[in-house]
Amino acid sequence: MTRIAILGPGLLGGSIALAMESLPGAEIRLWGRRAEVLEEAARRGIGAFHSTRLCEVVDGADIVVACVPVGVMEGVIREALPALGTKTLVTDVGSVKGTVVRVLGPLLEGKALFVGSHPMAGSEKTGLDAARADLFQGSVCIVTPEPATSPEAVTKASLFWEKLGCRVRQLDPVVHDQVCARISHVPHVAAAALVNAVAQRCPEAFGFSGPGFRDTTRVAGGAPSMWTEILLSNREAVSQGLRALVDQLEEVIALLEQNEGSVSAPLDAFLSAAKQRRDQLRLR
Amino acid sequence: MTRIAILGPGLLGGSIALAMESLPGAEIRLWGRRAEVLEEAARRGIGAFHSTRLCEVVDGADIVVACVPVGVMEGVIREALPALGTKTLVTDVGSVKGTVVRVLGPLLEGKALFVGSHPMAGSEKTGLDAARADLFQGSVCIVTPEPATSPEAVTKASLFWEKLGCRVRQLDPVVHDQVCARISHVPHVAAAALVNAVAQRCPEAFGFSGPGFRDTTRVAGGAPSMWTEILLSNREAVSQGLRALVDQLEEVIALLEQNEGSVSAPLDAFLSAAKQRRDQLRLR
Repeated sequence: MTRIAILGPGLLGGSIALAMESLPGAEIRLWGRRAEVLEEAARRGIGAFHSTRLCEVVDGADIVVACVPVGVMEGVIREALPALGTKTLVTDVGSVKGTVVRVLGPLLEGKALFVGSHPMAGSEKTGLDAARADLFQGSVCIVTPEPATSPEAVTKASLFWEKLGCRVRQLDPVVHDQVCARISHVPHVAAAALVNAVAQRCPEAFGFSGPGFRDTTRVAGGAPSMWTEILLSNREAVSQGLRALVDQLEEVIALLEQNEGSVSAPLDAFLSAAKQRRDQLRLR
Repeated sequence: MTRIAILGPGLLGGSIALAMESLPGAEIRLWGRRAEVLEEAARRGIGAFHSTRLCEVVDGADIVVACVPVGVMEGVIREALPALGTKTLVTDVGSVKGTVVRVLGPLLEGKALFVGSHPMAGSEKTGLDAARADLFQGSVCIVTPEPATSPEAVTKASLFWEKLGCRVRQLDPVVHDQVCARISHVPHVAAAALVNAVAQRCPEAFGFSGPGFRDTTRVAGGAPSMWTEILLSNREAVSQGLRALVDQLEEVIALLEQNEGSVSAPLDAFLSAAKQRRDQLRLR
């Protein structure tokens, strides 16, 4: 029997619980701050043990998965410290890893096995209601060891995510944050900026939007408080990525403003380069 | 029997032909520059008459739909002039309307009924192979009369698009171009710029992209030559829209660089405003 403590029964924590429960030999224990969410989980049959007392839930756990916002991660893990064993695997699901690993690594050294994780699954919905057992099936989970990370932690965490249906890959936490800035955080800001630019200057245009606009801006439906925290936690890489995006847009503005005709080889080259890379993505 | 001449059997022209043929009382005639595409259409049973000679196809037509690139529209319609009747409806499917209407309006005055159209249906695929009979079902078609446009042209064009399954709406051609810049042309450039920014500075990130990045950049898979022409034909509105987008992005960069903490009310407000507008879109 593997005892798994899930801290925070939201979309990710709830989905981990649902997915794990369909596997044999797992005992799921849920901690949350709000009793009503735990009661809801119990009503839906998610988890075998529920408590708002952190150490009660963590006690005797083989694996502790912190599914709480990045900003409260340190406080939650600090509170759980007395109940952790040196062989307990502690991992998290935060979208930003540099800050989390920098804090939790030293805090847990010698007290538990720790490695950061980022399961790249989710939706623009949040909360236990949106949780589903197949959320992780076929998705990528990035495990982020540092040089000092115990190989045992990496192995345990990798096996855990694979059981949930993830393909596991490894990245250094800082590289992870740069990568995620480019493929997730900057696109999120771009989607929100596209919506806001229409709202401010041409709101009647929303009434004519089709599937293209809808897809391009879908991620802007994500939870603002969560995304504010993600962007601020990764501010340097995001701001760098946004500058790179602005440079690209300025390039197109210059091409449009310099050109009087109906052909432009550099603009065609710009769009062709993007299409070629995008088409490769579709094939994977 | 309504005789419909379709000029250019690509994605849109081919789809109009396929959709019209399932309706009784329509005779579909296809013109294209390349004989092999017309042969392919004939092989697939699309259209009752095929020719590379424009006047032969247009002769006696009740409705002429120009499905050719915006840049060659004038030349094609000029060539068809001798075969048009004063009660023939001429319309087009161009994504940009200001330039088209400015040229075709005077050219066709007194020689045929003319109004511009923009069926907002399509895909990132192009060509006859991608054509399908249900392409227009449930989509919006914008008809773009000017003050001088004959009401008869507007009525005929509206009925035509409704038969294809479109919801028809009207916009002044210049307003149409501003609206489309905001909801289609600027998002297209943004998608391409997002891809190119990753490619230039952090290509390894593509390997970690998930559904969010894929949706946000999907439209960047569109045909570069077609999009180059669209952007150049609508350069003023697009460049204005891109500047508005850059302003929004600069606002976020400033918020990230000024902020040292893990909360930012203005950033949260920025993301909340976008979410609220985006959620309304989902409900429609």
